[in-house]
Amino acid sequence: MSTIKATNITWHEGHVSREERQKLLKQKGCLLWFTGLSGSGKSTIAYTLEHALVQRGHLAYVLDGDNIRHGLNKNLGFSAEDRKENIRRIGEVGKLFVDTGVITMTAFISPYREDRQTARDVCGKGNFFEVFCDTPLDVCEQRDPKGLYKKARAGEIKGFTGIDDPYEAPENPEVVIDTSKHSPQEAAIILVDLLVKHGKIAALGE
Amino acid sequence: MSTIKATNITWHEGHVSREERQKLLKQKGCLLWFTGLSGSGKSTIAYTLEHALVQRGHLAYVLDGDNIRHGLNKNLGFSAEDRKENIRRIGEVGKLFVDTGVITMTAFISPYREDRQTARDVCGKGNFFEVFCDTPLDVCEQRDPKGLYKKARAGEIKGFTGIDDPYEAPENPEVVIDTSKHSPQEAAIILVDLLVKHGKIAALGE
Repeated sequence: MSTIKATNITWHEGHVSREERQKLLKQKGCLLWFTGLSGSGKSTIAYTLEHALVQRGHLAYVLDGDNIRHGLNKNLGFSAEDRKENIRRIGEVGKLFVDTGVITMTAFISPYREDRQTARDVCGKGNFFEVFCDTPLDVCEQRDPKGLYKKARAGEIKGFTGIDDPYEAPENPEVVIDTSKHSPQEAAIILVDLLVKHGKIAALGE
Repeated sequence: MSTIKATNITWHEGHVSREERQKLLKQKGCLLWFTGLSGSGKSTIAYTLEHALVQRGHLAYVLDGDNIRHGLNKNLGFSAEDRKENIRRIGEVGKLFVDTGVITMTAFISPYREDRQTARDVCGKGNFFEVFCDTPLDVCEQRDPKGLYKKARAGEIKGFTGIDDPYEAPENPEVVIDTSKHSPQEAAIILVDLLVKHGKIAALGE
């Protein structure tokens, strides 16, 4: 029972501030919101960046279909209403991660401007960076990593973004990356530089 | 553009493993699930523990009504169905926090055994610790920090846990704390010891 007493700890009952956690982590939480067509490289870049950050000693985490659609949002389908709620919840969880101090990446098509704006508003100014994976549709369709374009073209999937549902391109994204021209590694370098520039992480050697 | 290249980084495209993040943070993520009546001390202990952990250099975060009910779960009311969904979402977000490596605390009445069991199952064996704040109802009602018991007794609030809605006490909680007998500091010490014992954080001096 003396574990803590021995440290002469100062007891507090209120919340630990975001600043205290940032000091502990030597980084500032923020949300990199990847948006773009299926196959445009969102997850690949996010995971490449996650590795790069962790290797530099930073805590980073990716929210994507794998951990969200099978968990928090498993009770949502693909109706207009459910898609909106899907993105709303992701924005709210992103905000909690940012408050914790984590450099957080979300990798979802998130085709509608209004929904992305809601996530931006929730996270607050200076905490949200929209990363538009602006890879041409024909390149995404040729990659077709999940075979979804094939099914959409065959009419087996209805309302597929880019085929029979619109993708509303960002008007003022913080970053635009065309993965038919840049590798995931090049994209990750651009994003690390962005994080340094905005004071979220220190430059190497600092 | 040479920020990362200079580190001779090894590029990876897959997920960063939970183990890699644990190594970085020098702790293992887990969820301390506080449950008990309104006024039983859940949030107070959680925030006291959060401060103690951060002072020891550990990343900790509290999910409670303040950051959940006004954000992620603001579209839920207090019907039986919504209460269930409220706890389900908290369990799923807790799982994501645990995966990130954060020592996470949830402070919600969470009166139903079945819902708490769902959260336990979602988090996985060894990651979930149920902390039962077993403070007598009359003590909780006397504290009445939010004036809710008064309103419930006056019939202004219906379905209030402990008054006209049941609280199903945990059958096998990892920890039981009666805050009419123990201070928040004593409770935090018990919980730090629990985290050390289960290898989530190192003992001081290790």
